Amino acid sequence: MIAPFQIASGPRVRFGRGEAAFAGEEARALGMKRPMIFTDTGIASCGVLESLTGGLEKTGLEFHLYDQVEADPSDESMARAHEAYEGSGCDGIIAAGGGSTIDTAKAAGVLAGNGGKIHDYFGFGNVPSHLPPLITVPTTAGTGSEVTCSAIVTDSTQKIKAVMASPLMFARVAVVDPELLSLMPSPIAAGTLMDALTHAIESMTSPKANPWTKALCLQAITNIGRYARRFVENPADPEPASAISLASTLAGHCFTNTGLGIVHSLSHPIGVYHHIHHGTSNAIFLPPVMRFNLQAVRADYAQIAPLLQNPAGPERIDPRDESAPQAAIDSVRSLLRDIGISATLRKSGLTSEEGFEIMAKDAAESPQVLTNPVHATEEDMLSLLRAAMDG
Amino acid sequence: MIAPFQIASGPRVRFGRGEAAFAGEEARALGMKRPMIFTDTGIASCGVLESLTGGLEKTGLEFHLYDQVEADPSDESMARAHEAYEGSGCDGIIAAGGGSTIDTAKAAGVLAGNGGKIHDYFGFGNVPSHLPPLITVPTTAGTGSEVTCSAIVTDSTQKIKAVMASPLMFARVAVVDPELLSLMPSPIAAGTLMDALTHAIESMTSPKANPWTKALCLQAITNIGRYARRFVENPADPEPASAISLASTLAGHCFTNTGLGIVHSLSHPIGVYHHIHHGTSNAIFLPPVMRFNLQAVRADYAQIAPLLQNPAGPERIDPRDESAPQAAIDSVRSLLRDIGISATLRKSGLTSEEGFEIMAKDAAESPQVLTNPVHATEEDMLSLLRAAMDG
Repeated sequence: MIAPFQIASGPRVRFGRGEAAFAGEEARALGMKRPMIFTDTGIASCGVLESLTGGLEKTGLEFHLYDQVEADPSDESMARAHEAYEGSGCDGIIAAGGGSTIDTAKAAGVLAGNGGKIHDYFGFGNVPSHLPPLITVPTTAGTGSEVTCSAIVTDSTQKIKAVMASPLMFARVAVVDPELLSLMPSPIAAGTLMDALTHAIESMTSPKANPWTKALCLQAITNIGRYARRFVENPADPEPASAISLASTLAGHCFTNTGLGIVHSLSHPIGVYHHIHHGTSNAIFLPPVMRFNLQAVRADYAQIAPLLQNPAGPERIDPRDESAPQAAIDSVRSLLRDIGISATLRKSGLTSEEGFEIMAKDAAESPQVLTNPVHATEEDMLSLLRAAMDG
Repeated sequence: MIAPFQIASGPRVRFGRGEAAFAGEEARALGMKRPMIFTDTGIASCGVLESLTGGLEKTGLEFHLYDQVEADPSDESMARAHEAYEGSGCDGIIAAGGGSTIDTAKAAGVLAGNGGKIHDYFGFGNVPSHLPPLITVPTTAGTGSEVTCSAIVTDSTQKIKAVMASPLMFARVAVVDPELLSLMPSPIAAGTLMDALTHAIESMTSPKANPWTKALCLQAITNIGRYARRFVENPADPEPASAISLASTLAGHCFTNTGLGIVHSLSHPIGVYHHIHHGTSNAIFLPPVMRFNLQAVRADYAQIAPLLQNPAGPERIDPRDESAPQAAIDSVRSLLRDIGISATLRKSGLTSEEGFEIMAKDAAESPQVLTNPVHATEEDMLSLLRAAMDG
């Protein structure tokens, strides 16, 4: 029997190549007169937002640009974004960028709608009032933040990545336009898609997974297995970009309903202390965590295994085989090889196990522990960090 | 490449056995102080709403009961429901019933929020202002109306089933509790689940279908194929009720995003002129319409074919077989046999082809024609009516 579950009322999703040009219409429909576009300097300068800004100009909306979003944004950086918003006279936010941009926009929106400090809203369900209307326009295919109700904040005092989440933090509209991925460098394409894959696998195996989210996770994983290699080869190729872009949004929609697992518990402290790209650190931890979870989620892994194989490869794994669950881990490893990710913690700059204890403690105290299929202790986290040192 | 599509922001869904008891909490969270429960006399008197009303009493909310909802509700019957609401001093609606109840609640809500007459809101997107907060609690597994933004109105003047639809007509929360199906008579269970199956198949093959909705349609069809027979045998058995209940909600979620096909174009006039139960008339038209659409949607039908086979049967259809698309139609026919639906138009009381012309005309002018995979003319509709006469 199906255990009780809930599916949140998230943003309307507007998906498709060229759809960014309609963000202006959406802004107007939401009553914005003066939207602020949040982005980072790289995105602002590379020209990828031209269709978006062109659409805004067409609607006659006067918009402001805030391009000072930082990677892995801290509470301080988010507070600065909020100040810029307050000082601008803007009445809505269009977040056009990766996870850092969208999360910064959510946090700035929470402050605009509620006052106070970012720390007041850490945790789940602590946002009392509405944000200004928010439109999310992802320029990467990984974060899923365009459709989630959470933001990840690097807490500059406690040195942890904290989560703030509330149904009020959902965007009103997510405009997902695969054309915006066309200028991504291949290594970033590879890293971010591993973020999406991690979301899909962790959501699918969460104790809060259900047939609704699982069906969509499987669709996300199918898209990634079929198109990841071609996407990384050429992120401007429309067909793979479209499939990977949708996979990322689907995975985001799923994990905001089910929670994630301990790949994220481990990725967050590594991000805080060693500034490894979030998608890459997910790629590092995914195989050892899958091995850790294997016995609890054999049926799920058996389904995943053939989906992630190289579609051009000769042999297909049969999900009914006794060996299929283990083969899922091998499928992830060969996908990583195929898209050029050979990362380990050591290759990412760690030379020793210094700091592993504190990171293991942070990981064990992270909220994702509660939605991992197997309970992980501080000691387990330490073993997983060690396992990830040399891959 | 994936063609542009949109997924609406629908209600939060709260699914699971026993969840109806929480509708009171949800009503309170939405700010209701005095909700009106809409239902029909059958549901009101059979005791199935005890958990719902018990939950409302626990929250201390004073609620009113309106049990005068009619089957295949007319504009007049909906206007009466609205009058009852206005006269009651209520500030929110809990629609607990089948599609007729939920559609009546939506229409009464539109009138409460906007004034005027039902006819003012026919068509798509013609509702200017918000409805009072609405919670939907389905007591059948077929309509999907708990998660759709439309209502079907029997227009007493024009003698057609009109559609009124608007994003403002979404419920705020859908509480889907399979336990509420436990007192359904088996023939009603069979008829309503055929409504859900028709929604899933018509949504999957709509020109507006996309990988997001298709994944969920396939999940709905999988649940129906696996559990329909056991559900009809005993609607109180928790496992099948849970699977079919979810299938119905998933199919509703999908079709509100993709539109339906011409099974519905034909079912609506038959309902108006001959009062055949909507699920049953869908069951009558589904096989001939699938034959009509076959060449345009062979790949979809090939996927469906094995999913609908009796899971206890010995042989499985291979979706890669040349014959698989046609086999989907056979699968539907055997499912109908297995759940005891042997309906034809003649068995449902039609003795001649009298009135076929007007019904064919109404069908050809229905909005679902635009989301059928093959264009159907008035003449095609006539042929389909004739084909359905004797099955």
